[in-house]
Amino acid sequence: MAKLYFKYGAMGSSKTAQALIAKFNYEERGMRVWLIKPATDDRDGADVLKSRIGLSAVCYPVEKTCNLVDAYLKFGKGSDVIIADESQFFTPEQIDTLRWLVDEENVPVLCFGLRTDFMTHLFPGSQRLFEIADSVTEIKTVCECGAKATVNARLDNDGHIVTKGHQIYLGGNERYVAMCHRCWQKRIEKEKNYMLF
Amino acid sequence: MAKLYFKYGAMGSSKTAQALIAKFNYEERGMRVWLIKPATDDRDGADVLKSRIGLSAVCYPVEKTCNLVDAYLKFGKGSDVIIADESQFFTPEQIDTLRWLVDEENVPVLCFGLRTDFMTHLFPGSQRLFEIADSVTEIKTVCECGAKATVNARLDNDGHIVTKGHQIYLGGNERYVAMCHRCWQKRIEKEKNYMLF
Amino acid sequence: MAKLYFKYGAMGSSKTAQALIAKFNYEERGMRVWLIKPATDDRDGADVLKSRIGLSAVCYPVEKTCNLVDAYLKFGKGSDVIIADESQFFTPEQIDTLRWLVDEENVPVLCFGLRTDFMTHLFPGSQRLFEIADSVTEIKTVCECGAKATVNARLDNDGHIVTKGHQIYLGGNERYVAMCHRCWQKRIEKEKNYMLF
Amino acid sequence: MAKLYFKYGAMGSSKTAQALIAKFNYEERGMRVWLIKPATDDRDGADVLKSRIGLSAVCYPVEKTCNLVDAYLKFGKGSDVIIADESQFFTPEQIDTLRWLVDEENVPVLCFGLRTDFMTHLFPGSQRLFEIADSVTEIKTVCECGAKATVNARLDNDGHIVTKGHQIYLGGNERYVAMCHRCWQKRIEKEKNYMLF
Repeated sequence: MAKLYFKYGAMGSSKTAQALIAKFNYEERGMRVWLIKPATDDRDGADVLKSRIGLSAVCYPVEKTCNLVDAYLKFGKGSDVIIADESQFFTPEQIDTLRWLVDEENVPVLCFGLRTDFMTHLFPGSQRLFEIADSVTEIKTVCECGAKATVNARLDNDGHIVTKGHQIYLGGNERYVAMCHRCWQKRIEKEKNYMLF
Repeated sequence: MAKLYFKYGAMGSSKTAQALIAKFNYEERGMRVWLIKPATDDRDGADVLKSRIGLSAVCYPVEKTCNLVDAYLKFGKGSDVIIADESQFFTPEQIDTLRWLVDEENVPVLCFGLRTDFMTHLFPGSQRLFEIADSVTEIKTVCECGAKATVNARLDNDGHIVTKGHQIYLGGNERYVAMCHRCWQKRIEKEKNYMLF
Repeated sequence: MAKLYFKYGAMGSSKTAQALIAKFNYEERGMRVWLIKPATDDRDGADVLKSRIGLSAVCYPVEKTCNLVDAYLKFGKGSDVIIADESQFFTPEQIDTLRWLVDEENVPVLCFGLRTDFMTHLFPGSQRLFEIADSVTEIKTVCECGAKATVNARLDNDGHIVTKGHQIYLGGNERYVAMCHRCWQKRIEKEKNYMLF
Repeated sequence: MAKLYFKYGAMGSSKTAQALIAKFNYEERGMRVWLIKPATDDRDGADVLKSRIGLSAVCYPVEKTCNLVDAYLKFGKGSDVIIADESQFFTPEQIDTLRWLVDEENVPVLCFGLRTDFMTHLFPGSQRLFEIADSVTEIKTVCECGAKATVNARLDNDGHIVTKGHQIYLGGNERYVAMCHRCWQKRIEKEKNYMLF
């Protein structure tokens, strides 16, 4: 039976490259892929998936109000797999419709996405995926200290860590850096002391 | 460096047995374990961890208002590891203090707990663990159909699935049954139709 | 479709307890389990599985020359799952017959066993499982230094590490200790220097 | 402490792409990578790593007789990580020297490679890695039937599965295809019957 997969990782863990490699592997075996992402993320164009390492592909852009069952039946029907990137930006209802497609249409769904925002809180889409995915696995990356990076630190123009603001602020890699929790805490502590002077 | 582990599973996946086995393994190597659980769960006594397979141990009961750093320094100091059961019932703030103990005291923390309630929503404690744990792994169990069970269905006295009510209702195994998402949905659908007659 | 699982771990990682918990979980859902182990391992009786933590169960003892397909059809037919402990002692041919049961009878097979002997070499049964299992996962335990233990050190009566001898020497836990590779190497190095005086 | 990782997968599971992405992630954080592969595999040049999806990089070619500690001290010293592709072709002794570098130089080593040959037997390099790696994880890919592919079937010019011959035969993807064990067995069975006519 088909499954719903959540493959989560920090910023810069190559989630998009992994999504594109999964697509490549399926297509190489003659299978059909429906590639989607939330239209919210239009940094590289709302209908393009682009990885920093140099891979890219055209995808179906999913608006906030889009019913994914309708969209699937219209644009994805007959696919052997659905691959979704930036899944943290889907609404919980959209994740529920992906779950429905897994259960009723028996099509596997691979969701790639961020785990948490810059304040270590789940995004609505990633929360729903942690709740109902059949398989939850981490795409790992490394902190500068050598440990695994798990926190997405947001930096201001001076390179200081920001701990207030809106959850979504799409400014590319130069404003976010993945760290381990220990380094993140230490740096916040250090910069807090610095602010006093 | 020490890590914060979240080992989640459905009802009846032997989470408590796993916690007690982890304790056994550490102690067999001459290491000290601080075993804790939220006092909320007092089905077997607030200070007892008890597994259906027949294992049990005395643990430190953690009240909702307990500061876990203070409690650790008072009762757990010098431990080689902290093992927590029923971690879904910790408050988010208590998970944050466990995170602090990992980062600052360099003591590993193993949290065992449920992923979601009977309506497939995260508990406050499991949500915070999904957000900030270093390692997230599933303790698997099986649905009657043979697939992996991921949903904790709540049953009423007639054995029908309940889809409304309070998040916490501690009534033992006879009122909950772990199922795969597909079987859970099918049974809700079937019982809904039945209700019409 | 059913799968062949290999769940490997070092000495003292609670493999037998895990096998018995898996059995318990299946049976609690009303499913039938065929529990087996190689008759080679008769420390607790050839037809008993016994865990140090205090759990035990009767099992079918598999002789070196036993054809597991025949034995299954005679003694295990109709089971929902086959659970095997001490799988490192099966012959490669016996693992192949378990593989056949998975593919042809569609019965899942869970094999628990050691990864390597006291010289870090695979056992015949574990080698075949690493080659053809569908799922390979580690049952973790801890070295005295706090790292993960992966090597099964054999100790002589004076507590020194042995690096020569027969692969199989069933003497219980008092003669084996699980260590991380780094600690194992350091201790061999240290004891070698000591031997010179 | 540094670890020895074995990331194994079937043919066409994008192992090389994964090795190059790991390299990219380390370098993006300003860390130094020593990229190596056995010189045996010279399909794309002995000193080039090339992925079917379009990624490539220059690497250090390791001869059968190469002492990897010497080579590391000469060419890789000061690296933050060693990344090795096609690790199944290393000799067991070379894997032991990588293990030594992990333990003594505290440098993490990521080994990507095939699990088994076309007859489902371990390669010498992959066998040693299954024996002494700290972390063993699978890079998954899909069989045409939708299940996970685990077997590397070798095909002759007519597309029939070959079950005899030398372990190493580097002829590119057109001669190998990754399958699940069930499909592989069924096809061998079917072609065997076909041969009788």
